[in-house]
Amino acid sequence: MDSSEAPTLQIQDWVEQIRSGEMRAISHAISAVENGEPEALEILRQLFPHTGKGYLIGVTGSPGTGKSSLVDRLAAAYRKQGRRVGIIAVDASSPFTGGAILGDRIRMQRHSTDAGIYIRSMATRGYLGGLARTSADVALILEAAGKDVILIETVGVGQDEVEIVRLADCTLVLMVPGMGDDVQTLKAGLMEISDIFVINKADLPNAARLEQQIRAMLSFAGTREGWTPPVVPTVATENKGVEELAASIEGYRAHFASPARRDRRQRERWRQRLMEMARERLVERVLEEQIGEKRLLAYADAVARRERDPYSIIEEILRQVGLSQQR
Amino acid sequence: MDSSEAPTLQIQDWVEQIRSGEMRAISHAISAVENGEPEALEILRQLFPHTGKGYLIGVTGSPGTGKSSLVDRLAAAYRKQGRRVGIIAVDASSPFTGGAILGDRIRMQRHSTDAGIYIRSMATRGYLGGLARTSADVALILEAAGKDVILIETVGVGQDEVEIVRLADCTLVLMVPGMGDDVQTLKAGLMEISDIFVINKADLPNAARLEQQIRAMLSFAGTREGWTPPVVPTVATENKGVEELAASIEGYRAHFASPARRDRRQRERWRQRLMEMARERLVERVLEEQIGEKRLLAYADAVARRERDPYSIIEEILRQVGLSQQR
Repeated sequence: MDSSEAPTLQIQDWVEQIRSGEMRAISHAISAVENGEPEALEILRQLFPHTGKGYLIGVTGSPGTGKSSLVDRLAAAYRKQGRRVGIIAVDASSPFTGGAILGDRIRMQRHSTDAGIYIRSMATRGYLGGLARTSADVALILEAAGKDVILIETVGVGQDEVEIVRLADCTLVLMVPGMGDDVQTLKAGLMEISDIFVINKADLPNAARLEQQIRAMLSFAGTREGWTPPVVPTVATENKGVEELAASIEGYRAHFASPARRDRRQRERWRQRLMEMARERLVERVLEEQIGEKRLLAYADAVARRERDPYSIIEEILRQVGLSQQR
Repeated sequence: MDSSEAPTLQIQDWVEQIRSGEMRAISHAISAVENGEPEALEILRQLFPHTGKGYLIGVTGSPGTGKSSLVDRLAAAYRKQGRRVGIIAVDASSPFTGGAILGDRIRMQRHSTDAGIYIRSMATRGYLGGLARTSADVALILEAAGKDVILIETVGVGQDEVEIVRLADCTLVLMVPGMGDDVQTLKAGLMEISDIFVINKADLPNAARLEQQIRAMLSFAGTREGWTPPVVPTVATENKGVEELAASIEGYRAHFASPARRDRRQRERWRQRLMEMARERLVERVLEEQIGEKRLLAYADAVARRERDPYSIIEEILRQVGLSQQR
């Protein structure tokens, strides 16, 4: 055997192990993606043809709405149906608490005897831009590993997190009665992508009022392709309403199962993702590799001293990398 | 006069009118920036050398923290000192309410007899990416128009809005006691850029507890370049604590007034802005102009059908625009 082929063979083995659902191989691949290791790209490429069969469910809501509890209960319900489940928990809220990592361990222990479930927490490191792409890649790995359902939970507070749930097949927005978490404060972007509303802690006072508010907003926003988002009450900590929620998700899936609808949605989703991926790659290639930090700082200095204006610098950068406009 | 020179002369006139503070010329220029009109770039270029003397104050906080009231009171305090004030109110929270536009009119009426104040509301239209750049450009116009202080208020819920306040010289983060708006839910990015904490509605119960929480978090996060963010209590509706807040801002300004500190911050700010501007321009140039929507959709189709993987398509796009890696 030619020694130069060894790395390729190793990656093929690795890919096979992931596809047969081996936890260590999966965890290893996810770490490679998170750390931007060079093998990650080749692994993702080889796994990609084996994806497309898992169902991605995005779960979002403010801190304290009970996302983790609900996701755990939903996962258990799917396991009872014999489906393999992956969970991706994205926590972009705070670098101080370390809550994501701790919660991850507790949850892993709870499910530790079940090989049909895989849980991974991802916390933001510095700049948020890459988190949406990374979680999309992690979802692909879990799909290729044979997970039938992948739950992605995230605090829905920012554009970046809207991007994360945007890649889901079905998105749940969690709200809780009387949390000052009014319908008015719902981000426009989140409103647009919510397929099912969940009122968690529905045994609290004001649950009916919150439901009314959501319905009023929905009557204003209208239906999308014949689907009006249902409002499902749950009490996750007591496992109430979870079966009904799973049924709602199934209803949504059936509604969009026709090839025409599915194709349109898939195309739109991949258009978005390709744009995001290209955006990131372009910045990396042009600003980091071709222009470089040193020159960027020199430009910034010149602008700060008002010796140059930023608008002509941007055109200069485009010219330098051969992208200036031929007008 | 050669007729081909007419547009340039018109833009020069326009620029002169803006610099002398004419409201109509300012409004017209801001609209041109918002709508991406072709003259906008040339106006910004010509105004740029006349900027750099205004002081930008970012004001952010959840809905209901009283940002608008506080900004109005601060503006009035600065007017009393004889300073010219610009206000940029960015509302990215909801496309349904139209609250921004209505609030804008009410506020304009309140200050309508004062030519030393200019208020402009900006609501998000569709994708949020461009809002940070647009508000930065609007701030430049107001600076060139001779405003000494520019207040930028925004609901600090997303990465996009963190980007907006990042361009400020001094950033205030507003919190309100007992709003479920706990210190824990503060976005990491927001925490990093907060220079002064304001506890508004400080006459509510639990104000002391909130102050304690903020101080505890600050002791953990530490000081930056010798500055520990103060916590200033206010009751904006009763104009209480506003003078003290203005004094805190002045203290912050003085702290960072040394040429070395100011230069370092200016350079870092412009480095960030140049990156953002380049990112947007690269996507526009490559994806919109060179690749085009039709080809992007064809790629998305191929990926959705698993005929191609997205990773190799991105490399193909880079190759097509002459940016592929020479390794």
